[in-house]
Amino acid sequence: MLDVVGHPLAALVRGRRPGYSLDAPFYVSPEIFAADMEIIFGHHWIYVGVEPDVPEPGDAMVVDIGKDSIIIVRDDENRVVAFHNVCRHRGARILHNEKTTVGNIVCRYHSWTYDLSGALIHAEHMGPGFDRSCHGLKPVHLRSLEGLLFICLADEPPADFDDMARVMGPYIAPHDLRNTKIAFQSELIEKGNWKLVMENNRECYHCAGNHPELTIPLFAYGFGFAPEDMDEHERANAHRYSCMVQERHDGWEAAGLPSREVEHLADRVTGFRTERLPLDGEGEAHTLDTRAASKKLLGSFKTAKLGALSFWTQPNSWHHFMSDHIVTFSAIPLDADNTLVRTKWLVHKDAVEGVDYDIDRLTEVWQATNVQDAELVGFCQQGARSPAYEPGPYSPNTEMLVEKFCSWYVGRLADHLGL
Amino acid sequence: MLDVVGHPLAALVRGRRPGYSLDAPFYVSPEIFAADMEIIFGHHWIYVGVEPDVPEPGDAMVVDIGKDSIIIVRDDENRVVAFHNVCRHRGARILHNEKTTVGNIVCRYHSWTYDLSGALIHAEHMGPGFDRSCHGLKPVHLRSLEGLLFICLADEPPADFDDMARVMGPYIAPHDLRNTKIAFQSELIEKGNWKLVMENNRECYHCAGNHPELTIPLFAYGFGFAPEDMDEHERANAHRYSCMVQERHDGWEAAGLPSREVEHLADRVTGFRTERLPLDGEGEAHTLDTRAASKKLLGSFKTAKLGALSFWTQPNSWHHFMSDHIVTFSAIPLDADNTLVRTKWLVHKDAVEGVDYDIDRLTEVWQATNVQDAELVGFCQQGARSPAYEPGPYSPNTEMLVEKFCSWYVGRLADHLGL
Amino acid sequence: MLDVVGHPLAALVRGRRPGYSLDAPFYVSPEIFAADMEIIFGHHWIYVGVEPDVPEPGDAMVVDIGKDSIIIVRDDENRVVAFHNVCRHRGARILHNEKTTVGNIVCRYHSWTYDLSGALIHAEHMGPGFDRSCHGLKPVHLRSLEGLLFICLADEPPADFDDMARVMGPYIAPHDLRNTKIAFQSELIEKGNWKLVMENNRECYHCAGNHPELTIPLFAYGFGFAPEDMDEHERANAHRYSCMVQERHDGWEAAGLPSREVEHLADRVTGFRTERLPLDGEGEAHTLDTRAASKKLLGSFKTAKLGALSFWTQPNSWHHFMSDHIVTFSAIPLDADNTLVRTKWLVHKDAVEGVDYDIDRLTEVWQATNVQDAELVGFCQQGARSPAYEPGPYSPNTEMLVEKFCSWYVGRLADHLGL
Ligand code: FES
Ligand code: FES
Ligand code: FES
Ligand SMILES: [Fe+3]
Ligand SMILES: [Fe+3]
Ligand SMILES: [Fe+3]
Repeated sequence: MLDVVGHPLAALVRGRRPGYSLDAPFYVSPEIFAADMEIIFGHHWIYVGVEPDVPEPGDAMVVDIGKDSIIIVRDDENRVVAFHNVCRHRGARILHNEKTTVGNIVCRYHSWTYDLSGALIHAEHMGPGFDRSCHGLKPVHLRSLEGLLFICLADEPPADFDDMARVMGPYIAPHDLRNTKIAFQSELIEKGNWKLVMENNRECYHCAGNHPELTIPLFAYGFGFAPEDMDEHERANAHRYSCMVQERHDGWEAAGLPSREVEHLADRVTGFRTERLPLDGEGEAHTLDTRAASKKLLGSFKTAKLGALSFWTQPNSWHHFMSDHIVTFSAIPLDADNTLVRTKWLVHKDAVEGVDYDIDRLTEVWQATNVQDAELVGFCQQGARSPAYEPGPYSPNTEMLVEKFCSWYVGRLADHLGL
Repeated sequence: MLDVVGHPLAALVRGRRPGYSLDAPFYVSPEIFAADMEIIFGHHWIYVGVEPDVPEPGDAMVVDIGKDSIIIVRDDENRVVAFHNVCRHRGARILHNEKTTVGNIVCRYHSWTYDLSGALIHAEHMGPGFDRSCHGLKPVHLRSLEGLLFICLADEPPADFDDMARVMGPYIAPHDLRNTKIAFQSELIEKGNWKLVMENNRECYHCAGNHPELTIPLFAYGFGFAPEDMDEHERANAHRYSCMVQERHDGWEAAGLPSREVEHLADRVTGFRTERLPLDGEGEAHTLDTRAASKKLLGSFKTAKLGALSFWTQPNSWHHFMSDHIVTFSAIPLDADNTLVRTKWLVHKDAVEGVDYDIDRLTEVWQATNVQDAELVGFCQQGARSPAYEPGPYSPNTEMLVEKFCSWYVGRLADHLGL
Repeated sequence: MLDVVGHPLAALVRGRRPGYSLDAPFYVSPEIFAADMEIIFGHHWIYVGVEPDVPEPGDAMVVDIGKDSIIIVRDDENRVVAFHNVCRHRGARILHNEKTTVGNIVCRYHSWTYDLSGALIHAEHMGPGFDRSCHGLKPVHLRSLEGLLFICLADEPPADFDDMARVMGPYIAPHDLRNTKIAFQSELIEKGNWKLVMENNRECYHCAGNHPELTIPLFAYGFGFAPEDMDEHERANAHRYSCMVQERHDGWEAAGLPSREVEHLADRVTGFRTERLPLDGEGEAHTLDTRAASKKLLGSFKTAKLGALSFWTQPNSWHHFMSDHIVTFSAIPLDADNTLVRTKWLVHKDAVEGVDYDIDRLTEVWQATNVQDAELVGFCQQGARSPAYEPGPYSPNTEMLVEKFCSWYVGRLADHLGL
């Protein structure tokens, strides 16, 4: 636990200047990193994967969050549940691979054996005084939002997950994530603090200059702009874009696909935002030719021209749902200076690789974009280490959601610290 | 020196729950690691090697213990002595290879030269006011127990080394270690705290599930068991095993080989334990076919069927003496998370490789076992890092010596801290 | 900033024993390293390179000093200027390669653009309330001493740079550094504290035993010696050497080349020392055959037999100016245990590689010497880590300048800490 009285963290939290990037210690201090892991990642809903990660009973996935290691397993009743990956005998880590299929959960060291409900069912030589029922695996809270898996490491998870689920369910459900499979997964270690990874994700001010692939399907007017700097022609274009978005929203919603923005990034403990946006070109997917990447459309979709439904959650995820595939990202802090970004590309579970989809085509836009973002995040981490760094101003036209991320983050710290 | 008043270490020492694995900070905290290096490795007898490491006058070995580097050298009077490997001029490390042969001990930087008694005998350009006699190498306490070399870095080493030597001499002497040579040496960095390495060494609860090679020569009944869980048949086997051990002890002791258990693991500053145990199969050695690995028997042995005399010392060694060879292990802490295990296989000094013994056959059981143990130790270190870790119960039937190691360790800290 | 009251650094500074190497924490403590970066490298003139590093307007060089990264650029008025390499928007590092040529200084992240005077000239989407003039690059003090570039990271740099420049200008100017080019550059990470690198540089007590190449051009009598240990013959040789130096100084000074020693290593904030010394053999340069390495002599020199003008500065540089080439060294601390030594070999800007000079011949003496010194520095760092290390005596005959470095260093700390 964190010592609050007179702790410099409290001063930094109190002194945060809205509209400006954070003070350097928020990005580089190992102590604040430890506080982040305790306060943010220890007490909020963390996105960790999808139900198709563990499609069958006995399928298990290991996710490491900071110093914690979590087993996520589908039990015999087809429920996805989570446990701490720590043996109750002498504390050995139990599962070692990201994915396995198990009958029971068996510790290699002395063969203590737990069933899929976490109960200790076998422990040799422990003598008559030993009570197995006191030595089951420690459970971890887990919730599935239409197949997106969130865990919470706190004893009392934030209650407003239900509100998010109620709002987001109708947006996500049509994409039928539970009937997808993971076509590809990438893991990229970005050399920057997790908050720089999130800030980078929350704006497209940098897209024009850095993402030649991503800017093919995305409309530039969606990135934000300063209207006062525009000429006649640009103003007309911006207006046209805005009308088109409106019109598409009307059409999609009429067809039963919720699409309009819902934004609670900074005013909820479980902050989130969503919006379905049209895409450029053929308008089907985040691909280089803007067409769908998989022939088997998701759910009961009949058309591929559904743009992309984006879903962002605080503190660590973003997701793009298209008619034919889903790309879903989690940011996992490793230390003050490094963050793992795990990306999964999901297609219909019956889609056949090489026939219905091609991995390269499916993944090339976001693989390239992730690498570009990693480099930019690294530049900011290098800069934040410099004694000459000072917080700079966010653009009021293109970085509003970066500001919402920061104000959510600082607000969560303040709340936890009782400030 | 350690700040004790109100130091959390004192609280952790006081709060240790007997019969349970240690609190996580004992395994993962860099501060407690530093305390271990000061209190345990800085003030106890540490096993570092064998006389055959430095067989001839001028032969020198460098052993690093934490931040210390020690020169162990056989002097011209054939005594093995030890010095700090630090030049008294500007502090350069003097010897750099694990093994060398030297006339004098010469610092490369400015050629200051020390003889094998550590006296500074040459230092150029130091002017008339300089007193060489104040600038000799700093000595380190060293004792040889029938060829096993122990050093102590404290000014006042524990006095009870003599008690151990008096008891252990008759057990070890018949194996005539001084007339062996090092046939093979391995160095393995285990990714765990040194105490996890020691705990792992102090029980065979894990052997059945993890050591397919080692369990060939070892009898499973020697690992301990919960009698109340046994059926008739198992109970009869256990009884038979116990009678056989008794009978062998009688025979060996009648033949002049002390064999019965002596156990002072937790009730002495210089804690130790010994026992000679029969082996399975041909009963000769820790080999895959349970036969001797070297044709030249040690000392004046006439038969190879002498089982294995084991010798364990606190805090950092274990040894297996057989009729034909000796395997001797030291655990050297590197940091809170890493420990070097150095293993030496000794055979008769006149045994010829390829004729009398084969390195693979000689070493295969313990090389495999070491690697398996390293993995298990790593699992525990990973688990101990998790906030979900909590101390778990040691089996009263198979982990009694793990408990003795922990109670010795915690007792030594308490004593040093004046608790 | 450093907490001084009761800080152990103050005790270490006060307790320093003159004539002895420093206490171990000065070499190994990360906290003292941080203090060094703040007090020494943050408030003194640091040598970073030469004007030929950025020969043309728009040429930029990046130099990292601790956590700082500095852009050194030649502006359109041909002045060399320096800025912090940190974008004023969200703090990204701007330039990433050691050398580039730029029109403006452009941040990759969101394309903020600064001109060569550091002014922000372009920043899109920032809205009407944004004032560019408050968001220019932060300047860093830079001075050129006849082409040697020094920066100071403090707001108020030490004023006595001008004194050093006034004294040293006439020594250095004849070598016409501004009309040289960098023929070769090496970067070597020495595994030791920066102060051990500097101490190593400030004596040649170690040269005879460790530098077979460097001792070809250098006269051994220049290394210092204890007169009382000499025999008749040696005394005569030493006298002859001393007379020769005197005679050469007379000759060179008559020819307009200042040559006599000026020494302010310990009595100035901006400590320095210089002397021109004859070389052995042909007496022309630091080469294996002691002849000039480049056919194009520097400046307006007509003879190559000018010995070597050496120039040492506190805290981090040394330089050797010869008739045909210049070798210039900077030591850049990386952490308590590692130091980058950057060496540049300069020849006349019109000299042609392969025709006028050969890289191997030019660089072989100092490349070999650097590697040898790095090993020695590493030995001292290893030794300083040992609890057995204690400060040892500097030779009053060969290590006087090491003592001056240490007393300058400790004095600067004392001054900064108000002791
Ligand atoms: S640590 Fe898991 S069974 Fe012993
Ligand atoms: S440091 Fe050993 S001789 Fe100088
Ligand atoms: S960080 Fe440099 S332009 Fe945004
Ligand atoms: Fe991006
Ligand atoms: Fe084992
Ligand atoms: Fe040198």
